Amino acid sequence: MDKLLFTPGPLTTSLTVKQAMLRDYGSRDAEFIALVKEIRNRLLSLAEVSKEKGYESVLMQGSGTFGVESVITTALPTKGHLLVISNGAYGERMIKIAETAGIHFSMLKYPENTLPKTDDIQGLLKNEKTITHVAVVHCETTTGIFNPIKEIGKVVKKFGKIYIVDAMSSFGAVPVPVAEYGIDYLVSSSNKCIEGVPGFSFAIANRQVLSESKGNARSLSLDLYAQWQGLENNGQFRFTPPTHTIAAFHQALKELEDEGGVKGRAQRYQKNYLTLLTGMRQLGFKEYLETEKQGYIITAFHYPQDANFVFEKFYESLNEKGFVIYPGKLSSVDCFRIGNIGRINETDVKKLVKAIRDSLNTLGVNL
Amino acid sequence: MDKLLFTPGPLTTSLTVKQAMLRDYGSRDAEFIALVKEIRNRLLSLAEVSKEKGYESVLMQGSGTFGVESVITTALPTKGHLLVISNGAYGERMIKIAETAGIHFSMLKYPENTLPKTDDIQGLLKNEKTITHVAVVHCETTTGIFNPIKEIGKVVKKFGKIYIVDAMSSFGAVPVPVAEYGIDYLVSSSNKCIEGVPGFSFAIANRQVLSESKGNARSLSLDLYAQWQGLENNGQFRFTPPTHTIAAFHQALKELEDEGGVKGRAQRYQKNYLTLLTGMRQLGFKEYLETEKQGYIITAFHYPQDANFVFEKFYESLNEKGFVIYPGKLSSVDCFRIGNIGRINETDVKKLVKAIRDSLNTLGVNL
Repeated sequence: MDKLLFTPGPLTTSLTVKQAMLRDYGSRDAEFIALVKEIRNRLLSLAEVSKEKGYESVLMQGSGTFGVESVITTALPTKGHLLVISNGAYGERMIKIAETAGIHFSMLKYPENTLPKTDDIQGLLKNEKTITHVAVVHCETTTGIFNPIKEIGKVVKKFGKIYIVDAMSSFGAVPVPVAEYGIDYLVSSSNKCIEGVPGFSFAIANRQVLSESKGNARSLSLDLYAQWQGLENNGQFRFTPPTHTIAAFHQALKELEDEGGVKGRAQRYQKNYLTLLTGMRQLGFKEYLETEKQGYIITAFHYPQDANFVFEKFYESLNEKGFVIYPGKLSSVDCFRIGNIGRINETDVKKLVKAIRDSLNTLGVNL
Repeated sequence: MDKLLFTPGPLTTSLTVKQAMLRDYGSRDAEFIALVKEIRNRLLSLAEVSKEKGYESVLMQGSGTFGVESVITTALPTKGHLLVISNGAYGERMIKIAETAGIHFSMLKYPENTLPKTDDIQGLLKNEKTITHVAVVHCETTTGIFNPIKEIGKVVKKFGKIYIVDAMSSFGAVPVPVAEYGIDYLVSSSNKCIEGVPGFSFAIANRQVLSESKGNARSLSLDLYAQWQGLENNGQFRFTPPTHTIAAFHQALKELEDEGGVKGRAQRYQKNYLTLLTGMRQLGFKEYLETEKQGYIITAFHYPQDANFVFEKFYESLNEKGFVIYPGKLSSVDCFRIGNIGRINETDVKKLVKAIRDSLNTLGVNL
């Protein structure tokens, strides 16, 4: 039997999503092209924009990081200057992407439990006049913090810069009105809150801005502009798409709609999160972030102080019971993480909390 | 019902391969890590090498082109100089990859129906002393030609150069003893002759050569060296792997073994190819390549001269009957292509030929 995945993804998906992969599509066949077209339109709707409003969606093969790299290395011209606002591992990853590609960048770094301050950003944009693009992570999966992308967007737009948002683990379950927030590029992936399986990422892009990125790409495969042009010209991918994964995503988008769209999904995840928080607090666990900064996607919990607590044993014990949790990724604090996204509900979360209690007992850990 | 795919991939796969995707694996979970490890070892066996003999296999998210780009842009140092031997669209693609990445390259181009000549390569390597790497496509899918990678390898090794082979559409069904041929990097993908589904590519690499490529990569996502190090360190991918696709590939490798490995698969494909060739010739079609150059993977056929032949109508008519064929990709000759790889057999090919006959009748095409 499948284990339940309480991770930031790949996630537990519905059987019907997986069953959509029981077909072989020709990648240049009309039926598959129609699937891709529908997906691209639905993604725009989820972002509360449309082709008519001047936005485009582009799928990109590979993991979420491939998508982020594709956006950054296509958006930034040779003379571009990227400001990355970072308070976790995924902000750092954007810096690493820019560094590897030889893109000029600046950083505005915050501790992992701290929200970026718009005043700092304003000050920086005032002083460093060469900055052309600003990038930030929405839900920083390192901690589960929700960064204020709306407020940051206002500052970025005030200075007329291009705004890139990594909404990897939030898009589909947290409303992100792309036009209203001034986002020029939003990136997310197939295996997060839309509850598809892993295999590709996607970008929602301001068409005008995307149009001006021609020739910027440093890579043939990760050229977002060329990928967009390919999809527009004949509906096909330039290079072999993960047909089965895309069919699963198409089904996942239907199921998202059936659940009431972003709002409906947000409700289930919020309930999952609150159930988790209540249960874990009752067991004596303490979460890493202050509650007002904590999103409802993934939560980092401090290790118990009891010397009997060894994460690997704890993980293994839960694993045997059919629950997969996630190690921490914090730079200096010992934490583990529990995600509450994917095809799981309140009852599953309660079962997990019970399993955690049992595992602690078995390991002789007191909280 | 699924259509039968007579394409170069994505291909028709077995139901059991697709059913392996009905599970959600945690990407950092022991069970998944074990799958990946087994896959990596089996790939080495297929290449007739092993870890003990000094070879490594590395999986890379994305399509085959992502894999080729990852090899080229990781293998070539800043001062490297790549020679690409090209007689088709996939050779051209390697040139495009090098060009986009700003890698110094030379080309040795042949017409699409012509085999590269080792004397030319020898002459070129003698004159252009700065060349460090030589790349060639094994089965050039543009035409289905089999390039002489063994003979080319001898010349490349005589001059002590690093040898890159794109064996995308041949690996798994054509024996490629990587060490014997002097290949330092071989690239192929999940959805070709191993009969998995699309979503990742892989490289078989000479460990010594791979070890020396540290820091060369121009991209974070496509860094083959870092990907290898990640897999070696903890068995995990650096970035989310396509877990379902990988589970399918694991099953596909088992089924390849059940069929008698590369030899067994080669036999079935050869039979498919001969059945196709016989049937098409009987209908009056003429293949593009001379028979001695033609591989048993995919075949390009000339358009009939009858004015009633319109490829789109022909394609559509076959499609309605449940058969997907492939358009041509030749630079100057009107051809269409029929692949005979994937989970299809002699009977399927005979059905296709019959459907082609019927479609020609319907369209009023005389041969």
